[in-house]
Amino acid sequence: MDVDIGNALGTTPGVTEATLERLDERVGDAHERIERGMADDEFGYAALNLPETTDPAAIRAATGAFDDPAAVLTVGIGGSALGAATLSNALGGDADAYVLDNVDPDAVDALLAELPLADTVVNVVSNSGTTAETLANFLVVREAMADAGVDWTERTLVTTGDEGNLRRLADRHDLPALDVPEGVSGRFSVLSTVGLAVAALQGHDIEAVLAGGRDGRDALAGSLFESPAYAYGATTYALAERGALTNAVMPYAESLETFAEWFAQLWAESLGKDGLGQTPVRALGATDQHSQLQLYRAGPRDKLVTVVRPRERASTPIPETDLEGLAYLGGSSLGDLLDAEFEATEASLAAAGVPNVRVEIDRVDERALGELLYGMEAACVLYGELASVPTFTQPAVEWGKKAARGLLGGGDFEEAAAVADKRELRIERS
Amino acid sequence: MDVDIGNALGTTPGVTEATLERLDERVGDAHERIERGMADDEFGYAALNLPETTDPAAIRAATGAFDDPAAVLTVGIGGSALGAATLSNALGGDADAYVLDNVDPDAVDALLAELPLADTVVNVVSNSGTTAETLANFLVVREAMADAGVDWTERTLVTTGDEGNLRRLADRHDLPALDVPEGVSGRFSVLSTVGLAVAALQGHDIEAVLAGGRDGRDALAGSLFESPAYAYGATTYALAERGALTNAVMPYAESLETFAEWFAQLWAESLGKDGLGQTPVRALGATDQHSQLQLYRAGPRDKLVTVVRPRERASTPIPETDLEGLAYLGGSSLGDLLDAEFEATEASLAAAGVPNVRVEIDRVDERALGELLYGMEAACVLYGELASVPTFTQPAVEWGKKAARGLLGGGDFEEAAAVADKRELRIERS
Repeated sequence: MDVDIGNALGTTPGVTEATLERLDERVGDAHERIERGMADDEFGYAALNLPETTDPAAIRAATGAFDDPAAVLTVGIGGSALGAATLSNALGGDADAYVLDNVDPDAVDALLAELPLADTVVNVVSNSGTTAETLANFLVVREAMADAGVDWTERTLVTTGDEGNLRRLADRHDLPALDVPEGVSGRFSVLSTVGLAVAALQGHDIEAVLAGGRDGRDALAGSLFESPAYAYGATTYALAERGALTNAVMPYAESLETFAEWFAQLWAESLGKDGLGQTPVRALGATDQHSQLQLYRAGPRDKLVTVVRPRERASTPIPETDLEGLAYLGGSSLGDLLDAEFEATEASLAAAGVPNVRVEIDRVDERALGELLYGMEAACVLYGELASVPTFTQPAVEWGKKAARGLLGGGDFEEAAAVADKRELRIERS
Repeated sequence: MDVDIGNALGTTPGVTEATLERLDERVGDAHERIERGMADDEFGYAALNLPETTDPAAIRAATGAFDDPAAVLTVGIGGSALGAATLSNALGGDADAYVLDNVDPDAVDALLAELPLADTVVNVVSNSGTTAETLANFLVVREAMADAGVDWTERTLVTTGDEGNLRRLADRHDLPALDVPEGVSGRFSVLSTVGLAVAALQGHDIEAVLAGGRDGRDALAGSLFESPAYAYGATTYALAERGALTNAVMPYAESLETFAEWFAQLWAESLGKDGLGQTPVRALGATDQHSQLQLYRAGPRDKLVTVVRPRERASTPIPETDLEGLAYLGGSSLGDLLDAEFEATEASLAAAGVPNVRVEIDRVDERALGELLYGMEAACVLYGELASVPTFTQPAVEWGKKAARGLLGGGDFEEAAAVADKRELRIERS
């Protein structure tokens, strides 16, 4: 992963090299703090050790119980789903990968009607074993399997904590089971059992993903000018301090669309605290040039744009044509066109004075993805240190969980009562 | 479409009823301006007449040339694709709908390998007939059909302007062809030939979509307190003026996920001008409660959240369970759980003082979608009037188009030269 911050210099908001040089002392201190956290396997920081501590053999042992499934259905939500989905959607794979990370009955019904249940592995992931959405979906999926005459105990893989419902279920039915790693927040778990089991089931080289993570780890250094991940974390932090409260992440590769979603959780849930943080906006190049670029160039000066691309991609020639004004396309390729649009978008933002940062990987493969995901995690941890926020917790989501549970009769919570007090000002069609 | 702005009162940023009452005089004036634009079929405003002016019989005549296709492939980008995709993804349909709205060679190759080309209708949409991405993709698709022994002239539907490449191509090969409507920006074209042809090919009731549009038109009135669309447009405008520069649109229905993308183009490209505008953020409930809610509740006070739901959905009972702490889920349904999460999220944002607005439709069907899409267009036009921006143009995207074209050798553009002057500050992995 390489990072080019040249187009964040002198923009609005923007930084200068002098700004970054002054900030670099704090980057050095933060790097020491991070290294210390890693050395002590402290809560949260432990995630940055995963490329060393994750045991791919344990993952292969558990997933080896299933023989070339046609499909893998991950039942999980948030960090229990997004890492696996990021790898699946980037890499494709022998088995089709699906995710149930919502409780929309119409969508669940449609998916279950389509899946070859007898040849599907259900990968249920919840650290606590009590996540309402995940467990509700799992109960529905299990019943659908029973209705289809499929023995769910033969088709279920569990990834969970030491104790709790899912652990007991796995023990009782002798299900293949993986441990979620200790001290790792869900959104930092892609390089563990949580993110890699599906990749293994799809036939990917999970050792290479971990090797990429180690590349990322080896690239950390005590200066933002020597470490791509810290360059990204420090620059985005410095821009946010100066008013870039929105970070539009725009990969120029459809295979990285889910990466932008994974990044959005990482960034939002880690850094959105204490009135601080930067809103991640998921975009896609070149498509969103025809949707969002007008706003990025000419709207409020509250944003930066992160463009991401692989340096290698398929070429796919564009056929020659006599269509008027389009001769220039013939002899070119879709890849050339996409890369031209990438560079044109960077330049067009720069010309308008809008900060943008380029992130490049060699190609979309296991090793480069491992490095990219690790790099963004390290960038996020660095940003959190610079902003002095508690990067690894997510206290603000608890309120709503209690309220929802109370509404469903799962206990007596004052939050549920607040729902009934909703202030209304309804405007209806007459 | 009903709108409830109660949870935007007294928040941070927030409005009061008194604020809105004072603003309502300007809403009345803007409504008069909009009505005048509609009466004169002025550029842009003409879009709000589409429910009356679109001729469904012409769409059926053109699409009737194809007999129950297995798949429909729309080749278009931005407003030429998103409206059709919004309807397809909301309504499903007899034919599978695909979109080529990017020029990623890996994704194009993968899609073409999967499509049953002999039984696919290619729906190519470009007003000018020169959109680089669309025409390049069309040339590639046409060649793939030829390679597969499929006569592309039998499988292609064209939607374009009066003249230009695609019009000439349609004339030369006697292809079924539809006219893009006069005076309508692409992002406002969903209720025209541009948005409805795919729905017709998929077997949907396009007359009902247009009837829903007329419901939306009939619900416009000279006061925000009497018109759901204007209530939404005026409230979001007032919140943006007070610092809510981000609008997270969070449907609680997977079928409306593409609606959030369509909305994002509408809002960004129409209102992102002159340093003004509001950044649309595409979210999805309940999934993003586990990804974005932490930031929305506890991050910077620069946002509002728009939650959208259908009042009716499938129920899908959750099986009874003896899993510890989960008995409360048994006897409930996925729909109950999703609705509880919806209300809990609203309340949790309100408890944190974060403005949120509820938009409800009866159910996800043709008529309700027509009304919702029309309502959001009218809301956007009202916002544009209140902010005095040129809602219907998108001047800031031209720069990049010229640069990309210049890079590909399609002419001599100074913008392309600027690309070569890119300022670099690269941090590479050593």
